[in-house]
Amino acid sequence: MIDLRSDTVTRPSAGMLAAMTSAPVGDDVYGEDPTIIALEERVAGLLGHEAALFVVTGSLANILGVRALVPPGSEVLCEARAHIARAELGAHAAVSGVTTRTWSTPDGQIDLGQIRELIAPDLGPYFVQTAAVSVENTHNFGGGSIQHSYDALADLLDEARLPLHLDGARLWNASVATGVPLSAYGSRAAAVSVCLSKGLGAPVGSVVAGSAELIREARVWRKRLGAGWRQAGVLAAAGLYAVEHNVERLAEDHANARRIAEILADAAPGSVKPDQVETNIVVADLAGTGRTVAEVVAGAKEAGVLVGGVGATQLRVVTHLDASTDDCRSAAETIARLIA
Amino acid sequence: MIDLRSDTVTRPSAGMLAAMTSAPVGDDVYGEDPTIIALEERVAGLLGHEAALFVVTGSLANILGVRALVPPGSEVLCEARAHIARAELGAHAAVSGVTTRTWSTPDGQIDLGQIRELIAPDLGPYFVQTAAVSVENTHNFGGGSIQHSYDALADLLDEARLPLHLDGARLWNASVATGVPLSAYGSRAAAVSVCLSKGLGAPVGSVVAGSAELIREARVWRKRLGAGWRQAGVLAAAGLYAVEHNVERLAEDHANARRIAEILADAAPGSVKPDQVETNIVVADLAGTGRTVAEVVAGAKEAGVLVGGVGATQLRVVTHLDASTDDCRSAAETIARLIA
Amino acid sequence: MIDLRSDTVTRPSAGMLAAMTSAPVGDDVYGEDPTIIALEERVAGLLGHEAALFVVTGSLANILGVRALVPPGSEVLCEARAHIARAELGAHAAVSGVTTRTWSTPDGQIDLGQIRELIAPDLGPYFVQTAAVSVENTHNFGGGSIQHSYDALADLLDEARLPLHLDGARLWNASVATGVPLSAYGSRAAAVSVCLSKGLGAPVGSVVAGSAELIREARVWRKRLGAGWRQAGVLAAAGLYAVEHNVERLAEDHANARRIAEILADAAPGSVKPDQVETNIVVADLAGTGRTVAEVVAGAKEAGVLVGGVGATQLRVVTHLDASTDDCRSAAETIARLIA
Amino acid sequence: MIDLRSDTVTRPSAGMLAAMTSAPVGDDVYGEDPTIIALEERVAGLLGHEAALFVVTGSLANILGVRALVPPGSEVLCEARAHIARAELGAHAAVSGVTTRTWSTPDGQIDLGQIRELIAPDLGPYFVQTAAVSVENTHNFGGGSIQHSYDALADLLDEARLPLHLDGARLWNASVATGVPLSAYGSRAAAVSVCLSKGLGAPVGSVVAGSAELIREARVWRKRLGAGWRQAGVLAAAGLYAVEHNVERLAEDHANARRIAEILADAAPGSVKPDQVETNIVVADLAGTGRTVAEVVAGAKEAGVLVGGVGATQLRVVTHLDASTDDCRSAAETIARLIA
Repeated sequence: MIDLRSDTVTRPSAGMLAAMTSAPVGDDVYGEDPTIIALEERVAGLLGHEAALFVVTGSLANILGVRALVPPGSEVLCEARAHIARAELGAHAAVSGVTTRTWSTPDGQIDLGQIRELIAPDLGPYFVQTAAVSVENTHNFGGGSIQHSYDALADLLDEARLPLHLDGARLWNASVATGVPLSAYGSRAAAVSVCLSKGLGAPVGSVVAGSAELIREARVWRKRLGAGWRQAGVLAAAGLYAVEHNVERLAEDHANARRIAEILADAAPGSVKPDQVETNIVVADLAGTGRTVAEVVAGAKEAGVLVGGVGATQLRVVTHLDASTDDCRSAAETIARLIA
Repeated sequence: MIDLRSDTVTRPSAGMLAAMTSAPVGDDVYGEDPTIIALEERVAGLLGHEAALFVVTGSLANILGVRALVPPGSEVLCEARAHIARAELGAHAAVSGVTTRTWSTPDGQIDLGQIRELIAPDLGPYFVQTAAVSVENTHNFGGGSIQHSYDALADLLDEARLPLHLDGARLWNASVATGVPLSAYGSRAAAVSVCLSKGLGAPVGSVVAGSAELIREARVWRKRLGAGWRQAGVLAAAGLYAVEHNVERLAEDHANARRIAEILADAAPGSVKPDQVETNIVVADLAGTGRTVAEVVAGAKEAGVLVGGVGATQLRVVTHLDASTDDCRSAAETIARLIA
Repeated sequence: MIDLRSDTVTRPSAGMLAAMTSAPVGDDVYGEDPTIIALEERVAGLLGHEAALFVVTGSLANILGVRALVPPGSEVLCEARAHIARAELGAHAAVSGVTTRTWSTPDGQIDLGQIRELIAPDLGPYFVQTAAVSVENTHNFGGGSIQHSYDALADLLDEARLPLHLDGARLWNASVATGVPLSAYGSRAAAVSVCLSKGLGAPVGSVVAGSAELIREARVWRKRLGAGWRQAGVLAAAGLYAVEHNVERLAEDHANARRIAEILADAAPGSVKPDQVETNIVVADLAGTGRTVAEVVAGAKEAGVLVGGVGATQLRVVTHLDASTDDCRSAAETIARLIA
Repeated sequence: MIDLRSDTVTRPSAGMLAAMTSAPVGDDVYGEDPTIIALEERVAGLLGHEAALFVVTGSLANILGVRALVPPGSEVLCEARAHIARAELGAHAAVSGVTTRTWSTPDGQIDLGQIRELIAPDLGPYFVQTAAVSVENTHNFGGGSIQHSYDALADLLDEARLPLHLDGARLWNASVATGVPLSAYGSRAAAVSVCLSKGLGAPVGSVVAGSAELIREARVWRKRLGAGWRQAGVLAAAGLYAVEHNVERLAEDHANARRIAEILADAAPGSVKPDQVETNIVVADLAGTGRTVAEVVAGAKEAGVLVGGVGATQLRVVTHLDASTDDCRSAAETIARLIA
């Protein structure tokens, strides 16, 4: 099976497993796991922040980051298909009491005009206050798109004295694709999350970074949400290994995704625009192909290729370190046959 | 002072006060206040619903209605400047755990295209489910606009098997302006709120209507939110009086608002379009007048007229039963002088 | 019918109704209702506090007071049958995220030993912190008992640097019975609630008092919970009238309750100890009478007397200003016949 | 250093690490990790339940179990020093809206009389409903005590038609100490949690077990709380290894704890009763020793022994698989010198 449903499906490599078994560990609730401490310091540094916290998922990294910036009853603005709005089961409202208003763009991009309209003017204590704006970079359901107005938004928010939340689950991909250092992205945001278990290939784990004060509070809430783990250094070791070995190679995933897009565009012109495939995600619109998403997903599975749907007519293909260039080309050809 | 900041400023009339003091009352927590029971039955009937609950504010009526339709962690869709999104202090998230995504239109109108895009496809248990769509009719921050696509949206939702929530704080105004019976609006929604203390002139109180089951649950949550009042029949009597005496006369408020708009449009062309003033709210954009909202609000106050701002450059003027046609004309002329 | 189920069943008198209809009112959300302002200042003064807020119920007054003292995830300690633990539908947890641990005493009294044991030692950020202790005075389900260790508890909490929350729904009764001024009780607590619609006879309303800062925050949360009412001056007028006219007369209710207890003790020795009836609530234990609560409630109702149960074998009788001394004696004799 | 602060400090053994690196893994959010599935089936079977869910901590296992049994605004009863009341940062209130009332016993034991008093009679929809009773077995802050009235409580709750929640973080210890099979404990409760990372020595992980329906809901809420991990099979492998290899050996920890208690009792008579040390936790009261907890903790640390405090005058010593019989005796002698 070639599994291109998501970059979350990656499995730890032999080198990573060796790192995991040789890492010193301790009780992280007591702050005594040396491997976790090393990972947190490393990622905080990469992102241009004072401190960081190793947590079990990207969703939790976002929950902790957003709640640190937005009090209960206040709002965070985000794009309508952002991961925090669509794929975190309403945790920001259900757990943190944070409300949301949204702008919409075809590929999940920042739209400065819409954001300016949405930012609530300060009308006194009886109106919802905009407390933060959240941006997902790259944007998963926007097809792995890079936020090209990121700095412009950060400037706008500086002026409005509002903090930026950066959902950087795939910030590694954005950085590799653009050459912009992680810290150049990270330091513009008051809270940043990055994921170690997607393109980087660690089995479990994300990191949230911010000020020392923000991370201190996040640590308490991590415990309150039942996620204060113990000897998680075994996982942190995988994360450290991933940060050392698996970032630069994301360029291969991007090239593979572009090649897949080209093959699909040849087979079904208009279904996907290859030059809009900026990172490791390909979203193909099957509307004009005469085939449904369910049909193509099922047909591909029969032929040994796993892909997924992300909307009524959209197929999603995600490249990652467990799918070689040959795997990707072969998978693309399989799908191409189905939608031609 | 002529107070046109909001139709919430109305005071009980002599007739209303007489009704209040002669009404039989009882303990509503025990379900024994005959005047409250009469009001609830009356409003339920007007709105085409089985049951209703008398509550302290329109916000509470919305909180109870939305939470009955949307489980914690699920979402309600609404327009970005809807009262539930802007003016209820994030209660739906903070109290009910309900998350929100929004569409935007200049005057708060329903936009079927945007709503269709937003309604979340069912992607399994790990994605936020759209559980309801909420519409405010008339739309306060949209300038008292009537929802002209209300039935089309109700049809769309029937097809999508999603309930409609109707924030009808000023549904009385919509009904009087269009001639559409309250029940024709109300019966399309699974939960409806109407306000007795805005244009209708009661001192305190709103009503939420729905199925008997929904209202039974709303009654328990009303108590949980600390709003299970006792001998509130004195207020329900005012509400009943308002429903009897103050609905038809809303047409006067609408005519007054239209006349105000005409006077302002004459003084500052382009600031307001009189034929878009459909009910009792006039929103004038001062952007082209060379005057700020704060200046005009202050100048008007000095001249004995209270008005308010609803955005960076927008002035809001609201007509109601405590402002006569003469009051309104005089106030309009005062403002006209300030923005000419 | 003689209704002795609760002192919440009282109805506004003619004098109170006259006060209500002649009171000047305004929009309380804008802070412009002069009668509400007068009531809030009056009650704040009586309780020895800087500021106060007029709210729709005693439950809401408690919700706002407790949440101002106890952050989400921290705990308030209270007696196991306190109103906040038993009769507010879990609002402190469900709405405010506040957790509770409890001590138990037969009549709801403060038990300094148990409280000392419960107060959580500061074991670091991963343990629940005790953030406040709440006391109900008089204690409703404890039979209207007065908290005789109130000052001793306040001293203990001063030493432990913990705030006291006072649920004073019936603090008027405690003060009249003991001669201790309201301010002597109120000023020992960081937040106090008092009820105007129980023994004092107003139709609706309670007041929470505290520091100006606490009340400012309570005002915002009142709005968030959907309880920011408008021209509630009509109700505040009733409250002011009640404070002026109906406090001293509570002594009559206390005498009536004592007389009822004596009659029941004569009829069924051991069912109630008259000298433990300190205020206006009589709890009789029917265990030894051979009659069930349901039988006695039903029998009394047939004979024109309404009373209620508060436990498996306990009957509760509550005196108030709508039940004369004759009514009370007659009711007591009715019940006495049923349990003799 | 001999670390006897907690059994959470254990580190994975070589055998466990080997199991972790050779385990097949998959994406658990998609339900595709074979090692996790094997662990969940194994533990469900041991506990006599239909289904189970592998989660990151014991706290999360309790959060998911309690919220499945207790709706927002309802209550769970527990002992005042239970882990869910003291050491989970108020999550049950802050996250699940669940309120708590508590009974107190010296060693955390079930007290049927107090529980019977606390169970709320059904007084209608306006009173808090008791929805579950939670018991911690063994009871951590009660000194690792075994619940000897467990079956009697289960019988009482069957009669009252109330579900039992079992916090079985150290249920392995109870079972080994008493010979009662895990399933005999587990099957009496509607939801059970057990911990793999305390005495069993796995680095991270707990399991909650219950009906298939309960676990289905728990799986969704696990994701909502940001804890839906991916290739956590590496951790599940450690858990499976722990269940196979490290349960029976808990008897050694119990013997070591008893020997420690005897040494301390010899040194400071009355500080601890050895025959009350039933499992792997020793709580010594230093009140009569003339030494403070802080002094003893510091002195022991200097001598190479880590222990902790659990109250004003109480020292806690916990045995586990990383502390040999020699280590434990040596540590006990160190402490004995300090308190003699």
